[in-house]
Amino acid sequence: MKTYANLTRAERQSALETLRARYAEICTLGYKLDLTRGKPCPEQLALSDALWNGVADGDFTLDGVDTRNYGMPGGLPSTKKLFAELMEVQPENVFVGGNASLQLMSDVLMRCLINGLPDSPRPWGREEVVKILCPCPGYDRHFHLALSLGLTLVPIPMLADGPDMDAVREALRDPQVKGIWCVPKYSNPDGTTYSEEVCRKLAALTTAAPDFLILWDNAYCMHPLYEEIDSIPNILELCERAGHPNRVVMFCSTSKLTHAGAGVAALAANRELLSHLTKLYGYSIISFNKVNELLHLRFLKDRSGVEALMQKHADILRPKFEIVLNALDSELGELDIAKWTHPRGGYFIGLYAMPGTASRIYALCRDAGLILTPAGAAYPYGRDPQDSHLRIAPSFASLEEIEKAAELLTLCLKIATLERMQS
Amino acid sequence: MKTYANLTRAERQSALETLRARYAEICTLGYKLDLTRGKPCPEQLALSDALWNGVADGDFTLDGVDTRNYGMPGGLPSTKKLFAELMEVQPENVFVGGNASLQLMSDVLMRCLINGLPDSPRPWGREEVVKILCPCPGYDRHFHLALSLGLTLVPIPMLADGPDMDAVREALRDPQVKGIWCVPKYSNPDGTTYSEEVCRKLAALTTAAPDFLILWDNAYCMHPLYEEIDSIPNILELCERAGHPNRVVMFCSTSKLTHAGAGVAALAANRELLSHLTKLYGYSIISFNKVNELLHLRFLKDRSGVEALMQKHADILRPKFEIVLNALDSELGELDIAKWTHPRGGYFIGLYAMPGTASRIYALCRDAGLILTPAGAAYPYGRDPQDSHLRIAPSFASLEEIEKAAELLTLCLKIATLERMQS
Repeated sequence: MKTYANLTRAERQSALETLRARYAEICTLGYKLDLTRGKPCPEQLALSDALWNGVADGDFTLDGVDTRNYGMPGGLPSTKKLFAELMEVQPENVFVGGNASLQLMSDVLMRCLINGLPDSPRPWGREEVVKILCPCPGYDRHFHLALSLGLTLVPIPMLADGPDMDAVREALRDPQVKGIWCVPKYSNPDGTTYSEEVCRKLAALTTAAPDFLILWDNAYCMHPLYEEIDSIPNILELCERAGHPNRVVMFCSTSKLTHAGAGVAALAANRELLSHLTKLYGYSIISFNKVNELLHLRFLKDRSGVEALMQKHADILRPKFEIVLNALDSELGELDIAKWTHPRGGYFIGLYAMPGTASRIYALCRDAGLILTPAGAAYPYGRDPQDSHLRIAPSFASLEEIEKAAELLTLCLKIATLERMQS
Repeated sequence: MKTYANLTRAERQSALETLRARYAEICTLGYKLDLTRGKPCPEQLALSDALWNGVADGDFTLDGVDTRNYGMPGGLPSTKKLFAELMEVQPENVFVGGNASLQLMSDVLMRCLINGLPDSPRPWGREEVVKILCPCPGYDRHFHLALSLGLTLVPIPMLADGPDMDAVREALRDPQVKGIWCVPKYSNPDGTTYSEEVCRKLAALTTAAPDFLILWDNAYCMHPLYEEIDSIPNILELCERAGHPNRVVMFCSTSKLTHAGAGVAALAANRELLSHLTKLYGYSIISFNKVNELLHLRFLKDRSGVEALMQKHADILRPKFEIVLNALDSELGELDIAKWTHPRGGYFIGLYAMPGTASRIYALCRDAGLILTPAGAAYPYGRDPQDSHLRIAPSFASLEEIEKAAELLTLCLKIATLERMQS
């Protein structure tokens, strides 16, 4: 098979027409396919249905506390211990919150704006402009949240081992830059795991803002697709050792361990920062849902309980990823018109089509009944300067749907590429 | 029995010494009593233990939605309907949140500061000063939350039928006044229910700030102590009719219906304001705990299910309140040295001691092993200008403990009063 670049114009036109005929055929099939959000599928959710039997014996006590009643904001000692194991920190660094780590991030940023951090000269909201670094492609909800809080998004290129640290270093000369979004392991959307060097640099870099904050969203810390699991250094320890103990807040949740809509989320930070945040939380809430903490603790037990569960998740997810990856390989492998990531964990595959075609691929897929995350979504302000990147989320759909979706996706990618080459 | 005022100085001294002897005796008994927070007691919590069996059959579907997964921020249609019944509004006015209505209030105020409301000329955080009216005695956590957000607290006297509306009207001439805290039914701490006239005025008043907001914390809407239940007008409807549709956000939760640490909270507002808040929430969270919504819905069913449950709560709480009220009557009734409220619902009794004695009563009780909410806590900045008010929360303690606590409380009140009269 020749690459598209090596075809004559007429050969490309003929190939395009063949592809269009197949596309027209698919359009008649009434597909309703969706590869958008990183939602667990029902089979994954069913792995944790037994969680809800955890108080069937009527025992609601944990650590001597009646979990049914008010109190213990920030979590019970046993829950802190579990999350400390997952985040690889000490229990005294952990604050256990509600069901959503995104909301914890939102709360932290709002308090930064309204109250500031321990090292802030004043609340962020008193600054003219507050900027946040957005390694991209990244998680669209991070960017939308920051925008909704009035922050200015600064794109930073993602490399194979994490954010481009030269670009980060340069950006940090600006005192208006107050934070950076990081998904350090099996990142959304490219499945990238940060290297130790990147983590060390993030911890050690000189920043113009004294209260620069790393929002370390370790959403996929326990989410390998294979038996072998990536590891990342302990960013909190690195920051402490580099003399910047208050530089990082880590986030994680059980959303994709147990039930996505009914999990438990936590954050971790250095003691001074944690005590600052805990105090502020004390004004906003009496306590989070401790019965849910108890249920999770009884079901997950400890880190090895979580690891065993996550291998079952991996067994369900891996074949889905492999259908997409195999389709990309077999349909596009020799054409030299796209590249894509080969994630070892997480929920997404990053697909890089020929620059200028991602929006067209999105539209072609949509019109044939396959919803993808909109092109550009993984970039600040929804603008991919290359119009190249697409995020593929194969977790929720069935194997059969993914087969169809993968065929349609590669078909649309080829059509959009040829259209562009012919134009 | 004579009033203390009618006693001679020597008679008072002799009475004081008798009381002090009894106090000294009690101090040797090692009391560990607590009448501080409005926490349900274990017997109340046990009424709802069956809630957690609601998904034992493995059916997690509500309104066609898999509650285990992401999605439906703001609640499921059936949950909205239930809360609409409790708040006496339409389901389309309801947003269902996490486990804590206080956090919903916090979220709303933070978004006011950062983003503003539909009628705001700019975000509240862009104003030099933002003031909030605090009818007092009121709920200390309201005041602390507002303070933690940088708001200035403006005390407004509470009368028998709600906030002093003349004082409110006067205060509203100040454009820096952006909001008012209200607990309209069985208020914390005096058990006051707002009159229809007060509600009408709140809805209709002219305000210098175009985005003035009533934070309508209807925490005790379903919490009578007797069969007969107070009713309050629909403030949302009143505001809409008065031409101020965006003036009010209502809050309620199941915290004191089911399990205080694991309930479901909701807010309600006019459609324009609700859509504004819902949009902003969409940036901060993907969805709240829908399995908990489902559990609550299956357990509570509807308003009449809640009413039946709350009569069982009342049966547990009423004797506790009556012990305190009977002790106050029998020990203090004829002395003319204090007055107190006779709540028909809610969680608290308001006790007004002789001005200048509340702190002393608090300290005497504490030193004998009875913890009360600190004197002044129900006032902005913790300062009761009269040093008169104490909040009594009899819900959590056992009947036997409340007997002891009530004796000790009246004893300390008498001692502090006599001390003051003799000084």
